This record gives sequence, structure tokens and C-alpha cells, in this order.
Amino acid sequence: MMEFPRVHGRSAQALRPIVMKPDVARYAHGSVLSCFGETQVICAAILEKKIPRWMQQQGVEGGWVTAEYSLLPYSTPQERKTRDINKGKLDGRSVEIQRLIGRALRAVVDLKKLPGYTLWVDCDVLQADGGTRTAAITGAYLAASMAIKKALAKGSLAKDPFTDSVAAVSVGILAGEVLLDLDYQEDSSAEVDFNIVMTGSGRFIEVQGGGEGSTFDEPQLAQLLALGQKGIRELVQIQRKILHEGR
Amino acid sequence: MMEFPRVHGRSAQALRPIVMKPDVARYAHGSVLSCFGETQVICAAILEKKIPRWMQQQGVEGGWVTAEYSLLPYSTPQERKTRDINKGKLDGRSVEIQRLIGRALRAVVDLKKLPGYTLWVDCDVLQADGGTRTAAITGAYLAASMAIKKALAKGSLAKDPFTDSVAAVSVGILAGEVLLDLDYQEDSSAEVDFNIVMTGSGRFIEVQGGGEGSTFDEPQLAQLLALGQKGIRELVQIQRKILHEGR
Amino acid sequence: MMEFPRVHGRSAQALRPIVMKPDVARYAHGSVLSCFGETQVICAAILEKKIPRWMQQQGVEGGWVTAEYSLLPYSTPQERKTRDINKGKLDGRSVEIQRLIGRALRAVVDLKKLPGYTLWVDCDVLQADGGTRTAAITGAYLAASMAIKKALAKGSLAKDPFTDSVAAVSVGILAGEVLLDLDYQEDSSAEVDFNIVMTGSGRFIEVQGGGEGSTFDEPQLAQLLALGQKGIRELVQIQRKILHEGR
Amino acid sequence: MMEFPRVHGRSAQALRPIVMKPDVARYAHGSVLSCFGETQVICAAILEKKIPRWMQQQGVEGGWVTAEYSLLPYSTPQERKTRDINKGKLDGRSVEIQRLIGRALRAVVDLKKLPGYTLWVDCDVLQADGGTRTAAITGAYLAASMAIKKALAKGSLAKDPFTDSVAAVSVGILAGEVLLDLDYQEDSSAEVDFNIVMTGSGRFIEVQGGGEGSTFDEPQLAQLLALGQKGIRELVQIQRKILHEGR
Amino acid sequence: MMEFPRVHGRSAQALRPIVMKPDVARYAHGSVLSCFGETQVICAAILEKKIPRWMQQQGVEGGWVTAEYSLLPYSTPQERKTRDINKGKLDGRSVEIQRLIGRALRAVVDLKKLPGYTLWVDCDVLQADGGTRTAAITGAYLAASMAIKKALAKGSLAKDPFTDSVAAVSVGILAGEVLLDLDYQEDSSAEVDFNIVMTGSGRFIEVQGGGEGSTFDEPQLAQLLALGQKGIRELVQIQRKILHEGR
Amino acid sequence: MMEFPRVHGRSAQALRPIVMKPDVARYAHGSVLSCFGETQVICAAILEKKIPRWMQQQGVEGGWVTAEYSLLPYSTPQERKTRDINKGKLDGRSVEIQRLIGRALRAVVDLKKLPGYTLWVDCDVLQADGGTRTAAITGAYLAASMAIKKALAKGSLAKDPFTDSVAAVSVGILAGEVLLDLDYQEDSSAEVDFNIVMTGSGRFIEVQGGGEGSTFDEPQLAQLLALGQKGIRELVQIQRKILHEGR
Repeated sequence: MMEFPRVHGRSAQALRPIVMKPDVARYAHGSVLSCFGETQVICAAILEKKIPRWMQQQGVEGGWVTAEYSLLPYSTPQERKTRDINKGKLDGRSVEIQRLIGRALRAVVDLKKLPGYTLWVDCDVLQADGGTRTAAITGAYLAASMAIKKALAKGSLAKDPFTDSVAAVSVGILAGEVLLDLDYQEDSSAEVDFNIVMTGSGRFIEVQGGGEGSTFDEPQLAQLLALGQKGIRELVQIQRKILHEGR
Repeated sequence: MMEFPRVHGRSAQALRPIVMKPDVARYAHGSVLSCFGETQVICAAILEKKIPRWMQQQGVEGGWVTAEYSLLPYSTPQERKTRDINKGKLDGRSVEIQRLIGRALRAVVDLKKLPGYTLWVDCDVLQADGGTRTAAITGAYLAASMAIKKALAKGSLAKDPFTDSVAAVSVGILAGEVLLDLDYQEDSSAEVDFNIVMTGSGRFIEVQGGGEGSTFDEPQLAQLLALGQKGIRELVQIQRKILHEGR
Repeated sequence: MMEFPRVHGRSAQALRPIVMKPDVARYAHGSVLSCFGETQVICAAILEKKIPRWMQQQGVEGGWVTAEYSLLPYSTPQERKTRDINKGKLDGRSVEIQRLIGRALRAVVDLKKLPGYTLWVDCDVLQADGGTRTAAITGAYLAASMAIKKALAKGSLAKDPFTDSVAAVSVGILAGEVLLDLDYQEDSSAEVDFNIVMTGSGRFIEVQGGGEGSTFDEPQLAQLLALGQKGIRELVQIQRKILHEGR
Repeated sequence: MMEFPRVHGRSAQALRPIVMKPDVARYAHGSVLSCFGETQVICAAILEKKIPRWMQQQGVEGGWVTAEYSLLPYSTPQERKTRDINKGKLDGRSVEIQRLIGRALRAVVDLKKLPGYTLWVDCDVLQADGGTRTAAITGAYLAASMAIKKALAKGSLAKDPFTDSVAAVSVGILAGEVLLDLDYQEDSSAEVDFNIVMTGSGRFIEVQGGGEGSTFDEPQLAQLLALGQKGIRELVQIQRKILHEGR
Repeated sequence: MMEFPRVHGRSAQALRPIVMKPDVARYAHGSVLSCFGETQVICAAILEKKIPRWMQQQGVEGGWVTAEYSLLPYSTPQERKTRDINKGKLDGRSVEIQRLIGRALRAVVDLKKLPGYTLWVDCDVLQADGGTRTAAITGAYLAASMAIKKALAKGSLAKDPFTDSVAAVSVGILAGEVLLDLDYQEDSSAEVDFNIVMTGSGRFIEVQGGGEGSTFDEPQLAQLLALGQKGIRELVQIQRKILHEGR
Repeated sequence: MMEFPRVHGRSAQALRPIVMKPDVARYAHGSVLSCFGETQVICAAILEKKIPRWMQQQGVEGGWVTAEYSLLPYSTPQERKTRDINKGKLDGRSVEIQRLIGRALRAVVDLKKLPGYTLWVDCDVLQADGGTRTAAITGAYLAASMAIKKALAKGSLAKDPFTDSVAAVSVGILAGEVLLDLDYQEDSSAEVDFNIVMTGSGRFIEVQGGGEGSTFDEPQLAQLLALGQKGIRELVQIQRKILHEGR
């Protein structure tokens, strides 16, 4: 039994209100403001005719997909976040997250079909209320997908490199209860916290989680995975609707 | 006689459509999306209970106002802009601009009335189509003003530190013609380019300009200043309307 | 049916030869050379009478546990790895791994029982043949445990802060087969790759994995977790033996 | 009526004693110690057979002119200035100034006549008593001019790329009075402070100014510009004398 | 007469126990753990098919030999040493030492016989009890020599580039007495401290020394050099034995 | 017999013309332009009421003496030297030299007599024609000495912390001949190159040298030391003359 009410009275198994606002950055090739409740992330994709130096040096064929993630200084309710450039180094947490976003996208892209191109996806957090990485991945797919559509329409790409879609959601255990899509308050108190990344066709791409100072057992993990899969299915529907509505 | 039509058929003396969209970053104490035509800048103000180290060391009374300016990687139509942190240093142009924004705001603030506080104003460019620094200053004043209002309402500040308002606009000479509020295309071709920063009461705060590879004489400067003053008066009206409408 | 022989003829379910050589760095408070087959990681723990600045500022009681991870330049068989300081920034992969090691240790430490102390665990990879992060975590626990024993013996700590032990192992799917403790060759070709971190008492601390360019389903995940648990049980036995044998 | 005496009894409209000492750095292609009263700046020009990477990449023809500005650690009377390299980043004020010096020089250079060359002008401040940027620009032109003469004599350049000369001076308002060429003491107390950059033929290159915490109106601006023009005329005479005297 | 006993009762003219343990880092082309008493340095050599950019640009023929030196964080008995990457710059002392190691090796290498190759020698200090730079040089020669032997055997090098061997030892004056191979305790109290680098054939490569806060005269210098030469002769015997014994 | 004439026809045993020009940087507490032939180094001393953080933390009494060394970009005849800040790190050679200058000064200073002060000596090379480090040390002593005299006169120091004077000179072997005070041309071709740092009373402070690619024997070292001592005696006379003449 749940000991606390969730914000907006949502149930333990419910996503926050999900809003995907396309075209928020018109000079990108695709962009979306990805909102999971109060969490808002600008996701913007650019297809650049250039491959990373290591691919050139190693003579790898095809192209590359990479992501960058950053918290805007005014994105956190607690206190202003100093810009990385003023601390002289990239925040460790941001490094971890942007690597995850990149892997998530590459899992559903056939890099051979991006010959000579790098697909950049930038995720800048405008408001951080928990789940920024899952909002980023879910929005990043949309932004990237829009950029690819434009490139296919212009003929700069011959074939669609996407083999599937990708979405992500968090799940956690708080006061013994399994919750979907935790907000900042919940996340801070959760005993266990997982991020689940899956394809539109229902296969796992990445599962990662654990707890600062807590542990869990196999039945709990099974519950978390089941709830995560439910959340992903709903997000996939929302993504499809956005893409079908055209832009 | 003008040799070229301006975008949207505006006259040489006209501003682009100006839109100020408040509250785009809800965890800041004040925020606005400042749009001068296609140029869009997120301006967000945070009042922090802390003063810079140099003020502490020198025992200066009162508080401080400072600004940071950054181009988001997808803000430029030409090509993706590498983040400063990946180049390891702050872009020279950004340094110049954020120092200007800070000085512009401090010219209309009585720092004594911010005892122990730093007012941070972050300006992140979402779309860059010329005039990002003037859109930033004009929006920064609104964001800062909203943050101050909240602090006065909450009682964390006793008196309004603002002594006046501030707005900014660009003027330039292109093909011999004096133009207001240049977009990127115009700015790239202009012989002379000025930024005018003024108070709401019509006094100059800062005037700076010149030309890469061009020079100008006193009558031209007089024309530029006159047109800039006209533009500022219109921006001041727009700012007042936003602030009076409440938020 | 397995299509390829594993090095040393081990079975799909077998760990590589595990060797834990204590006291390799005598100026640390505890140290071990953690070897999983050809992978060798120097794990060294130092207990420092000092807490991080953020703990001081936030007035958090107790102490802290943190880890640093680095590949020595000559640890990789392919080519010499440039030192981070010469590239000017910490390698993204290293950031991710050292954060994981830190979380793994903190999951089994009661930070209240480290009043005013930081427990540093450094993991420097001498030879990298796959699974460096799991060898690092498994050895880090031993090094930290030895450092804590010394501090208890000297009386600088009053109570043992460890609530359990921790070990880690990798599991993966290669050519459709589920394998334990992948070496570099196997890891490079694996479709799916997981790292499992568990306590000595058999609870999960962290589960993370996925595949560059591949996906997986729930039955596969279940198999991976089962095999990981088996590997962890064996590592826990080895750790106990080392600690009981005294140093 | 002036409320205070100026150092050395000079009038409000007078420059400080101006001394230009050539050849202070004999391994540069042109150099001058530019002294405006106690302010002393080493200006040294080097013509390098190489163009910046961005010119190569964009296929721009011609050459480039760029400047660097730095305060030597012992140049400021108040306290020793830490070197930029020890703070890890270029001082914001220095960035602003060196960009100004570069623009000032490029305004009087035909870059097409520097094919394949970069003209570097370094300005290192030996003593800072106000007006370092104007002393730098005025001296930089002389150093650059000497370097170009040598290159023309040697035949490495075919045509003189200079289309005019350039000089700069500061003007300001202090206690209501308009002053020329402010020293540090005056500059610190001035309500308004302008830097005027002009060609030898009397055209403006750049005008920039304002006040920390003060504002000004159009008649004041007109007075400032008039006094600045007077100062520039005198500096231009001094520059001509130096260059005609040969080296 | 000696006023203090040395550790292990060694005489003023005796080296500490010297142990050279080969093959400690099996992915390097040659490696040794160089132990001078408690001081332990991992020396690892890698021959890379690539020359530094400056050699390419200047069109210098042959190859290059370079060294890097670093203290592992747990190498010092006093307190944990922060990694360079976390301080953002290479430690000044390390810079000085790695330049010395590089020069020492290059003095006995004919760079023409390394066509297109860089020989990297990394020296990572595992335990620092004084004399780390001399242990590093003495071990670096062994590691480099092993790497060269392999390359000759494989045929990637045609001729042995080594013209002689190299070893190094410290000498100092403590309480008026001339001592060989100082440990940390002795080094900290020594009035004068020298490092002597010599070839196997008994010629000097580099002599450097002096004292923080002390001075010395010519007879003292002569004594120091004589004792240093004795120490080097013993180290040369040890090196020869290692190399003759195999690999 | 000498095979080549030296510049200005000086003999193998002669110093270049030595000129010490005081007061070149009037905002320093003491300064001198130290010229050894064409080599010119600005040496400037500042006495700051502040001690380094490590002295505060370790509770060391007294004060500190430290030096910084830098090549100005236009100091080298070959090509412009990029500023350290633009390469992001301090040049290795500069690190080595500034550490040497600091040690040289500290050898003749009683740090107890600088209570609470740091004596900074900055050495900026204006022209580099070989021997910049010896010109720097020789001039640094003069600048520091002038700064100390002022502090004694003002009463901010109670006692003179200098226990002796310090000077430095280079010696080398070129084409088999032992030479004093090598210029750049000689230094580049020398087989062996030493820097000798001595006190005014004729004791050694530091001796360091060797050769890139060459070796030497004991009789050669004896000759080098003898010639170095002769050079130092002459420099000490010049220093005394400057200081006695007052400033």
C-alpha cells in the first residue's frame, strides 16, 4: 500500500503527463521539447557531412551517431548549476548520460546507411525534475528521426538507417513500492532506481540500475522490469503519434 | 534608395517582429524567451544568496549582477557549433558579449540594494539570426526584473535595486543605407554595425561599433544613433507592456 | 552448442583463473593486485582524515567512499593509451567506471561509521584483457577491507563500516551462447554484455548492460542474471579466503 | 571648471607625454615600446608564412592580421597579476581587448595583399596606468608598419597592404568634465569612458564606450567624440614622425 | 664518522638492495619493476610506428625516444597524491623528471636506427622512498632494451639503436657525510643532493644537483662524483646480468 | 686551438657584453633588464604580503621565494612562439627553468626573515640568444635585492633575508673546446652544455648539465667547472657595481 500521494494524484504505475513539442529549435534538422511532467529537455538533431577522426583513421565504413547532454544553469530547482566550461571539465554524471544516449540510438541505427555522416543529437535540459536521461532518449529518437526524414526527402541519404525506434523510462522502489517514471522528489528517496531502454518492438537495449546504499533481489528486479516495459509501450505509442502527425 | 528587399518586407527603419515569451524556464526566478524575428534567446535570472569572492576579499558592500552568454550547438544555421567545454575554452566572442550584458544591467542597478546577493542572468541562444546580443540584453532585463519582483514579494530584498530599465538594438549601414535591427544576412554584408544600449528614460549606457574592413564618418554615426534611439523607444514600450501585464 | 573454444579450454560457465595478490603497494593502507585471467588491476585503498567539500558545505555527517579508475598507458595490447593529462580531460569511459566502483562500495558501507574520513580506492589497470571494471570492484573491496581492518586495529575507527562484501562479474551473449567473465576477444564480439554487482549475501547492487547495436529479450536477461549470480558466489568464496588468511 | 589638477599639470584636452621607442624587441620584424605617460606597452609584429586553419578550410584568399594582448604580472601598481596559464584561462578583459586591436588593424589592411601570411601583433603591457588598449593600438600600427616595410624591402610582399594608418585614444567624463587620455586614477573615477579608434585620414573605425553604473546623453557623446578626434590627430602626427625618421 | 645508522645497516657507500623484476606489464614490449630498496617503479617500453608531429613537420629523419613519469596516487607514504588530471596540469616536478629520463635514453640511442618509430618509456612510481628518478632511468633502460630486442627479433628494426647502456644513481651530503643512493628520509635532510647519469662504459651523460638552502665546494663535488661512479658501476653489473639471463 | 671565431671576436673564456639596466618595470618593487649579449630578460620582483597555501596548511613559519619564467612570443629569432595559454599548458622547458631560478634564490635567502611574505620574481625573455636561464638568475638576484632594500627602508621587513648573492653562467664543449657563456648558435652545436649557479662567496648552489646525444668524462667536467667559476666571479663584480651605484 502506498504511503504517500504522487504529484497530480497519479497511480504508482502511471507515467507523468508526456508532451513532445516539435520544432523548438528551427536551425536543427530535427528538434523536440521532450516533457515528462515538469522535466523538459531540448532535443535537437543535426546531420553533419563528416565522420569522427577515429573512423577515418581506422578506415571504418559508414557513419556515426553521437549525443551530448547538458544541464542548463537554471534547470535545477535547488541552486544554479555552474557551467562546465567554468569548472574546466565535463561533469561526470553528464558524461555517463551522454554515453548512454549515444548507445541507445546506435542500437537502432544501421551505421552503414549513414555513409560519411555524423548524426549529432544534443540534449539540453531546460527543467530537471527527475528522469532527464529517459526524457532525453525518448525525445532524441524523435529529433533524430525528423532529421533523417529530411535527409531522405532531400536525397542526401539513400536509405533510412533506423531499424527500429527507441524509448526509455525510469522505474524504482520507494518505501517498498514499485513506481513508474519517478520525479526528482521520488528519485531522491528511492531505495532502488532503474533506467530501462527498449526498442519499439519490445526488446531491451539497455538496463541499468541499482541503489546508492541499498540492494535488491531477483523478484524485485522482475517487478521493475515488468513495469518498465509497460511504460515503454505507452511512450512508443506517443512517439508514433507525433511522427505520423507529420511535422 | 534601398537596393534590396528586407525579409517580411519590413522597412529600413523597422524592428523585426518582437516576441517576449515569459516563464520558459520555470526553475529560474525569472525567465523569458526573447525573440527578435528568427533570433531566439532564453534569458533566465537567478538571485543567489552569495557574493563573488573578490567582493568578499575587498570587503565591498552590496551585491553583484553578472551575465553568461552561450550559443547552443544547434543555434546556428550554417553548421553545428562545438560546445566550449569540448574546445576547452570559452569562445572569445561569447566572453565579449557576456561582459557587455553584465555592464548593461549593472548600469541600471543600485548594487547596494542587493546586499549579499548575486543576480545571475543566463542567456542561451536557441536560434541565431543576427542581433543575439541585443535580444539577450532586452530579454535579460525582463528576466531580471521578474526575479527581483519575486524577491521583493517574498521579502528577501527590501528595496527594488533597479533604477531604470535597459534595452538594446543593433543598427548598421548596408549598401549605403542605414538599417535598424539587422538579421544575420544583413549583418554579414553590412559595412558598419553598431550596438546601442540605452535606458528606458532615453539615456545611453553603451555605444559600440565599427566595421570589419570599413570606416565611417560623423554624419553617418549621427544617423545610426538616431535610428538606434527610435528602435530602443519601441523596445521599451514592449518591455513595459510585458511587465505590466504581470506574469 | 558452443562454436568456439574459450582460452585455456574453460567452459562457458567458468570464471577465468582468479588471483588476488595482497600488499602490492605498501604505502597504501590496503592493496591487492586483482587478476581475472590476463586482466590485472592494482587496487589500493587509503583512508584520509578529510571529507569532500560538498559534505562540509551541506553539513552531512559521517564520511565518504570514492574511487578512481585509470588505464596505465601500457595496459592495452592494441596500442599505447595516451595519458588523460595529455589529452586534457578524463576519458569518458573511465568516468563511467569509477562512478560505478564508488557506488558499488558505498552500497555496503555505513557512511556514518566513517566520521570525518574519506576512503579512497584507486584502481589502476596494469593489463586490460576484458572485465577490468569487475576485477576492479572485486579487488577494491579487498583493498578497502584491509585498510578498514588496519584503522580498526589502530583505533582510528571505532566500528567496522562494512555491512556486507561486494563483488562483480561480467556475463554476455556471444554467438547465441551465454558466457561468464568475458575476456577482451569475447567482449569485442559479444552481442550483449552485462556487469553484475552483488553483495556477499547474494543481493543485487547494480545491474547494467546492453549491446552496441544489439537487443535482447526477457528470457535472455534471466539467463544472464542466473549465470552472473553463480560467478559472484565463486568470487565471494575467493574474497573470504583471502581475508581469512590474514595478510 | 575643472575641480582637480591632472598629473603633470596637463589640461583636460591634453594627451599625456607620448613616447614611441622603436626596436625594443629585435627578433620581431617590427617593434615599439608605446608609452602614453606611465603606461608602457611592448608592441611587436611578426609576419609568418602561414594562414589560420579556418582560412585554409574555407578556401579564403589572401592573408590574416591578428593580435594578442597580455598584462605582464608586474604591470599593475596594485598587486601582482597572476599569469593566465596559472588560472587556466585567458582573462575576459584581455580577450575583449585583443579582439579590438585585431579589428582596428584589419580595418586599414587589404588582406588580399598578404597572400599566405599572418601578421601577428603582440601587445604586452609593461606598465599599466590607464589606456593600455589605446597605447597598444597606436603602437601596434607602428610595429606592424615596420614589419611590412621590411617584407616589402626583402620582396616577400609585393604590395603594401596598409590602406591607411590607425590610432586610438580614450576620452571620458569625470566630475562632469570631458577629459582626453585618462590615466588609471581618472579612469577609475570616470562616469563615462570611451575608446575611439580612427584612421590617419580622420574616419572612425570603432567607437565604444559607456559607464559602469552611469549613463550619458547625446550632447555629451558629441563632446567626447570631438575631443577624441583632436587626440587622434595629434597621435597621427607622432606616428608619421616616427615612420618618416626611418628606423 | 657517521652519526646515524642507515636503514638495514648499510654503509654510507652502499646501494640499497636492487631488484629488477622483468615482465610486470605483459602488454608492453618490454617492462621491469625497478626496485631500489622500498622505491618501486614500473618501467614499460612500447615501440610505436609513428613519429612526433614536429619531426614530420621539420622533415627530420629517423625516430624518437621519449619518457613519461608519474607518481601513482598511493605511492607516497605521507598522504595520497591527487592525480594530475584532477588538478588540470602536470606536476612541475614530474615534467622535470620525465624530461631527464628522455634525455638519458637518447644519449645512448642512435635515432637514425629507429626509422619512423617512437620508443615510449613510461615510468609509474608504485612506491616512492627516494631516488625514484634514478630507479626510473635504470629500469627504463632495461625495459627499452627488451622492447628493442623483440623488434630486432621480429625484424621490424634492422639494427640495434643502442650505442651503450645507461644507469643513474643519487648521491648526497648528510650531516657532512657523503652518502650513496639516499632514501626518502635521508634525502629530506640532506644538505646537498645529486643525480648522476652515466653510460655503461663509464662516461657522464648528465650531472645535476645542488641543495635547497645549502651550498657546496669543489672538493665536496669531487667526492660526490666519485661515489656516484662507484654506484653506477654496480648498477651496470646488475643490468647486464638481467639482460644476459634471458629475454 | 679554436676552429671558429666567436661573435664579436671574443675569446673562448670571455663572457658576452653584460648589461644590467635597472628599473625597466616601475610598478615592480625591483626590476632589471638583464642582457648577456643579445639575450635580454626582464627580471621583476614583487614582495607580496601573503604566503602559499601549502605553507599555511603545514603551518610553516617564515615566507617563500618563487620564480616564473616565460618566453615572450617574439623572443625567438626562428619563429613566433605560441603563448602557453593558447596551448593550454605550461611549456615543459619553462617549468624546468622556473623551478631552477626559484631554488637558486632560495639558496641565498633565510626564509625566516620574510615572515608572511612571498617574494615573486618574474623573468620574461624579450630576446633569446642562448643562456636565458643564466641571464634570468643573474638578473633575478638584482631585482629581488632591490625589492628587499625597499622593504627594509619602508620597515615592512626587519632584517635582510639575503645571506649571500647568486649568479649563474653556462659553459659548454664545442668542437672539443671549452667555451664560456654560449650564445644560441654555439649552444645548438655544443656536445656538452652546463649551467653553473654559484654564490657571491664562491660556493656552488647548483650544477647541471649533459648533452643531447653526447657524453663526457671527468677531466672535461673539471675544465667546465673551472671556467664556470671564472665567469661567475666576473658576474658577481658586475652585480656588486650595480647595487653599490644605488638605483
